[in-house]
Amino acid sequence: MSARVDIPADTSAAAKGTAPLIAASTHVKGGYKKGLAIFDLVLRLGAVVTALAAAATMGTTDQTLPFFTQFFQFQASYDDLPTFQFFVIAMAIVSGYLVLSLPFSIVAIIRPHATGPRLLLIILDTVALTLNTAAAAAAVAIVDLAQNGNSSANWLGICQQFGDFCQKASGAVVASFIAAGVLLFLIVISALALRKR
Amino acid sequence: MSARVDIPADTSAAAKGTAPLIAASTHVKGGYKKGLAIFDLVLRLGAVVTALAAAATMGTTDQTLPFFTQFFQFQASYDDLPTFQFFVIAMAIVSGYLVLSLPFSIVAIIRPHATGPRLLLIILDTVALTLNTAAAAAAVAIVDLAQNGNSSANWLGICQQFGDFCQKASGAVVASFIAAGVLLFLIVISALALRKR
Repeated sequence: MSARVDIPADTSAAAKGTAPLIAASTHVKGGYKKGLAIFDLVLRLGAVVTALAAAATMGTTDQTLPFFTQFFQFQASYDDLPTFQFFVIAMAIVSGYLVLSLPFSIVAIIRPHATGPRLLLIILDTVALTLNTAAAAAAVAIVDLAQNGNSSANWLGICQQFGDFCQKASGAVVASFIAAGVLLFLIVISALALRKR
Repeated sequence: MSARVDIPADTSAAAKGTAPLIAASTHVKGGYKKGLAIFDLVLRLGAVVTALAAAATMGTTDQTLPFFTQFFQFQASYDDLPTFQFFVIAMAIVSGYLVLSLPFSIVAIIRPHATGPRLLLIILDTVALTLNTAAAAAAVAIVDLAQNGNSSANWLGICQQFGDFCQKASGAVVASFIAAGVLLFLIVISALALRKR
């Protein structure tokens, strides 16, 4: 008799156990996608600030040396180097895109299971990442050259003379690399959110 | 009586119509994902060849000028410029990754609805794209400098002397940009394949 009582008790417990578990797991899935979407929005705001800071820092990089000859004053500005000009333009485009992408990120929070905004975000984020990385890598190549020069090509470093210029440019490059890292993370989040399960 | 006959005939036709339509659409969906996966594999093979060509071209870029002084022979090699060294290493890593990713692409063809390999591919492809773009952009900044020099920083172009060197390096950069474009396309394909529908 104890066995008879036991077996129904067990199966009913199992049945009771599974039903709430499934409900809980679907609830958790929705919450998980929503959590990813909120995380996406927060990271995106951070990326906007970082990309804007990179563009603004590089865009205001110039230095005039305090001494001058009769005919010439020594001055270095970001637009002396085409790579730094490209950097400013590219980072400005990335910042603009990130601001415009905020509404889509909010839509993804409201409707965590909609794939349309996610798909749009992942594709455009990848393009923005490419642009951002190109700007950062090209600028770092030039900053390294300005810092160390290259003896083989007979290019001398200019950071001995224009120290502040180089420091500001380096800061902008670091900011753009951080923005690229955040964008890479955003793409991973979008890919996880696009998954079927 | 004609009305009685018409109505059942219509509904049965509708019922007959819907059932095969649903079956056909699920079949088309599977085929669409399989088609994307096959396209992915073909593009990936193309990217392997392009990335390898970029690495090999840059890695064999050197030029010795046919004249020399008593003490010095003029020579330019890719490893005189750290950016070009980085380019060779980065493109070799990208090629290696692309070769290793081929089995996952084949798994995605065999099981078009599995999200695991797709998710892995999209994340690692994004990392590879970042590396590839960084190498290409940094190299293009240096190639531009070698071609045109920069009067503000007093860096003179070296392509007047080392013409073949510059041409080979430019070719490698072009190949790496093509590889980056293919990788971008692969990510879009993976994102489309990851969609729920």
